[in-house]
Amino acid sequence: MKVDGKHTRTIWVEADGWSVGIIDQTALPHRFTTVRLATLADVARAIATMQVRGAPLIGATAAYGVALALRADASDEALERACATLLATRPTAVNLKWALDETVAAVRNRPREERVAAAYRRAAEISDEDVAINQAIGRHGAKLIAAMAANKQPGAPMQVLTHCNAGWLATVDFGTALAPVYVAHDQGVALHVWVDETRPRNQGAALTAWELGQHGVPHTVIADNTGGHLMQHGMVDMVVVGADRVAANGDVCNKIGTYLKALAAKDNNVPFYVGLPSPTIDFSVSDGLTEVPIEQRGADEVATMTGRTADGRVETVRIVPEGSAVANYAFDVTPARLVTGLITERGIVAPRRAALAAAFVERVQGPSRSIAR
Amino acid sequence: MKVDGKHTRTIWVEADGWSVGIIDQTALPHRFTTVRLATLADVARAIATMQVRGAPLIGATAAYGVALALRADASDEALERACATLLATRPTAVNLKWALDETVAAVRNRPREERVAAAYRRAAEISDEDVAINQAIGRHGAKLIAAMAANKQPGAPMQVLTHCNAGWLATVDFGTALAPVYVAHDQGVALHVWVDETRPRNQGAALTAWELGQHGVPHTVIADNTGGHLMQHGMVDMVVVGADRVAANGDVCNKIGTYLKALAAKDNNVPFYVGLPSPTIDFSVSDGLTEVPIEQRGADEVATMTGRTADGRVETVRIVPEGSAVANYAFDVTPARLVTGLITERGIVAPRRAALAAAFVERVQGPSRSIAR
Repeated sequence: MKVDGKHTRTIWVEADGWSVGIIDQTALPHRFTTVRLATLADVARAIATMQVRGAPLIGATAAYGVALALRADASDEALERACATLLATRPTAVNLKWALDETVAAVRNRPREERVAAAYRRAAEISDEDVAINQAIGRHGAKLIAAMAANKQPGAPMQVLTHCNAGWLATVDFGTALAPVYVAHDQGVALHVWVDETRPRNQGAALTAWELGQHGVPHTVIADNTGGHLMQHGMVDMVVVGADRVAANGDVCNKIGTYLKALAAKDNNVPFYVGLPSPTIDFSVSDGLTEVPIEQRGADEVATMTGRTADGRVETVRIVPEGSAVANYAFDVTPARLVTGLITERGIVAPRRAALAAAFVERVQGPSRSIAR
Repeated sequence: MKVDGKHTRTIWVEADGWSVGIIDQTALPHRFTTVRLATLADVARAIATMQVRGAPLIGATAAYGVALALRADASDEALERACATLLATRPTAVNLKWALDETVAAVRNRPREERVAAAYRRAAEISDEDVAINQAIGRHGAKLIAAMAANKQPGAPMQVLTHCNAGWLATVDFGTALAPVYVAHDQGVALHVWVDETRPRNQGAALTAWELGQHGVPHTVIADNTGGHLMQHGMVDMVVVGADRVAANGDVCNKIGTYLKALAAKDNNVPFYVGLPSPTIDFSVSDGLTEVPIEQRGADEVATMTGRTADGRVETVRIVPEGSAVANYAFDVTPARLVTGLITERGIVAPRRAALAAAFVERVQGPSRSIAR
């Protein structure tokens, strides 16, 4: 997608041919800056501090992290250590595990001198595959939007609500949940996006609003508390969110608060869709609600807020009294019964065990590159 | 309740015998300061800017506003103008209208020279009545909490979730939703409160956490997105919130986001209670969802956040990109079907038209001081 009119991915190999460039997403929307990652430690820190975030982008970044680690030491032991370090950065998104397994499979059984090149090759493929997958999600989802738009009053825009950021910033390019929005918008479908600010880290206000603005998509930022009221009053035609992990039974683990929006959608007969690439599906997790580990992050993310002062400085302010405890659960699980459909690269799939297994049969039956657990 | 150990109400007549003191709630939790209101304009500004907020406290403040207005001009015309000015400050809370009607009834048909004293008298009565009502709500609700606590593992605290601030800061003293929590806590029931931060104005993080802390009640601040996850995992025993207006059919208008918590409570069989004084019931509104006007407030409340920097300055920071639109609906309506019970000064009332009418029969049949519309 475009930044100030120039096409940009969220991750790339720098001109030196080996170091890795990323957008520092913690500085958005106030400042667009890039960061150069040169070591495994750089990559682990970038993921843990959420300079890169979003399940698909975390996966691609981790793959490059393996390549950088092997560049320093191409031994089996170093490979193992790199995977363990990267896996520990974020426990919930399954794409991280998937990308590490993919990269390990690509270098395993190769002589050491070939490993670095093989790891870079697989990381680049993972990135390109992500883009292709997201374009397919965009095409399938845009058909859905166009069909719904056809039932609206002429001139009335499709009202889409989204939570957190599952746009191009969460992926290598193009986005998952927002890919259908971008494709429909580019096809000339009138639409408007309600953007949940998504406390505590405000990925909606900071990232989704910014990237929709860069692409010229009409949107309005709202407090996370607002979506239910909008749905009660017919102001939302569909909800579309991303996912950090989808279980074999169709349960959707996504940013904390997603479940509340799914409940409101159900209560008001608003379709609730999830845009996801198939690497986000974890067939080893039978039941999402009980089995997906939910990351708890630092209290400061809730107790403070960072933004820009009127005179242009970036400041962090504390909003919770000293002495009050704070809890910070990063994700929740939306039961499959609340999900209308999963928008995947292979089309719309029902959030049911059998439908998912049928759509991605090679994943269930044991692929050539199986996900080791 | 106590501030730094000293008993304090949220509104009082100053030592001069006529000006009105309030706590500036916009400065909490970082600074405890009081403000002196000397004119109708002072009162209207204090309500509109939310230096005072919370349906019961808005009512008491408005009553004093009439007294201050009459002090300057005791004519019928001035009385009418004062009521119109005050009524325009906040459209959703019904206590404002109720308190104005009460005060007008107290001064109407009196000679001008008696009006000021009568208005002060009625404002003081409204304040004292509020305290008595809230103490009764506390007693009834605490019985409920004690009964639920008896079914828990010995030593496990009752887990209560609340949204926004319906504590003593929202009232003259003691609180509505939090009155049962304070009474149960003082009776020695072990409990812990999950405090929704309540964006956009953060009354939970700023006010509820602060007043619970002052009273020594264990609590944890969470992002508004979190409650559903907690309820899914058995970490909430009851939800209790306040109300800005309750319709004759039991629909509850309260701070934006309340509806989402009620949906999650229903989905997880968690009891959902509303603590409210009877002046919050509006028998002239038959259906809350369609008839209660929902206040829209300024975009800045969503686009910015105010807090304290590490070096102690209070700063406002912008968190939404320039150019992104913002919407700010202040309240939503929770349908009666999602409400377990209404904790009133007359006990627990079912959120049903007949039950409400039976409990407050004199309000339905036309009280001597009827609410003019």
